[in-house]
Amino acid sequence: MAKLRFQITMSLDGYVAGRDQSLEDPLGKGGMALHEWAFATRSFRAVHGGGGGETGLDDDRIAAARENIGATIMGRNMFGPVRGPWGDPEEWRGWWGDEPPFHAPVFVLTHHAREPLELQGGTTFHFVTDGIEAALERAVDVARGRDVALGGGASTVQQYLRAGLVDEMEIHVVPLLLGGGERLFDNLDGPTGYVCTGLVSSPAAAHFTYVRS
Amino acid sequence: MAKLRFQITMSLDGYVAGRDQSLEDPLGKGGMALHEWAFATRSFRAVHGGGGGETGLDDDRIAAARENIGATIMGRNMFGPVRGPWGDPEEWRGWWGDEPPFHAPVFVLTHHAREPLELQGGTTFHFVTDGIEAALERAVDVARGRDVALGGGASTVQQYLRAGLVDEMEIHVVPLLLGGGERLFDNLDGPTGYVCTGLVSSPAAAHFTYVRS
Repeated sequence: MAKLRFQITMSLDGYVAGRDQSLEDPLGKGGMALHEWAFATRSFRAVHGGGGGETGLDDDRIAAARENIGATIMGRNMFGPVRGPWGDPEEWRGWWGDEPPFHAPVFVLTHHAREPLELQGGTTFHFVTDGIEAALERAVDVARGRDVALGGGASTVQQYLRAGLVDEMEIHVVPLLLGGGERLFDNLDGPTGYVCTGLVSSPAAAHFTYVRS
Repeated sequence: MAKLRFQITMSLDGYVAGRDQSLEDPLGKGGMALHEWAFATRSFRAVHGGGGGETGLDDDRIAAARENIGATIMGRNMFGPVRGPWGDPEEWRGWWGDEPPFHAPVFVLTHHAREPLELQGGTTFHFVTDGIEAALERAVDVARGRDVALGGGASTVQQYLRAGLVDEMEIHVVPLLLGGGERLFDNLDGPTGYVCTGLVSSPAAAHFTYVRS
């Protein structure tokens, strides 16, 4: 059975993006620093077209997150900074250039219909206007037994957590104090019903893994 | 120069106490579970009159937190559940019995004056009504070169963080998801100006240490 999994990096004070997100600052003020631990790893660099990088615990966590993924779901704000109707479809094609690192279908949650956008390397963005469950059904369908990765942002993750649809999650906590931005654990009522299956750390990040209990 | 230090345990979702704190449930719903990692250690048990307990990384963190402390400051809600005027001073003498584990002066922040309360083992509770800076001055004075420990709760810690008075802090993050309660990193404007000096973890807790930059 395909599982819905997410992994996300959070500052110690609970933020997955900084304040004032914009085209110039897609992760908000200070938000890029959240991902320095990942940028340093070999697995991240390999996927994003870079060589070298560190191996070890952090690298293993990045590699594990990418294993056995057959489709991805993300919120519209992770796809891009455009708000409201899409306008000219050539104008915004995602943050990732001509060959995005997904290599599988990506379902973008939005209120505004748009034709699928097929890019190189096997990534096609599908724009889903009929809700998170419909997106999950379509993603599971195309993943053909592999798992579905849930991207960000915080609001998208919260919607799936509230609906009880997340099977596994891994939170990478980095020792950054952003002081503001988008909180991951917010707008959630009551304990979310997950059991911790692992806690390991490098000097750069502590990795907490959970499965639905 | 005496430093103001705190160490506190926080759930992964950011809470240092659960919902609905009460006399029966001083740490709120699920809040006691925050401290299981500490209860298991030899250093904690030694201080609270128990034998045995685990050694290792978690125990080392508990022992380090207790080193070189000459006085403690805490919020009124950490001292007890009584609100408003104190009433009969014999009625509430703290959560810790006749011999509290502090063995040094404790300054309790309150809006309501009360005579000092001297208990066994060197702990005297002083009730400070003229604010956090006055409490710190008095604590530094009696600590005679040793450091001052800042207890909870969240609101007390936030007041000292906002005032820029905290020199060192250690956050123990446990893989619990409380879903609600008192957030540690809340009511703080902007980055708080601390540099991480260490991140280590056991399967039970990740320990993040910071100094003021």
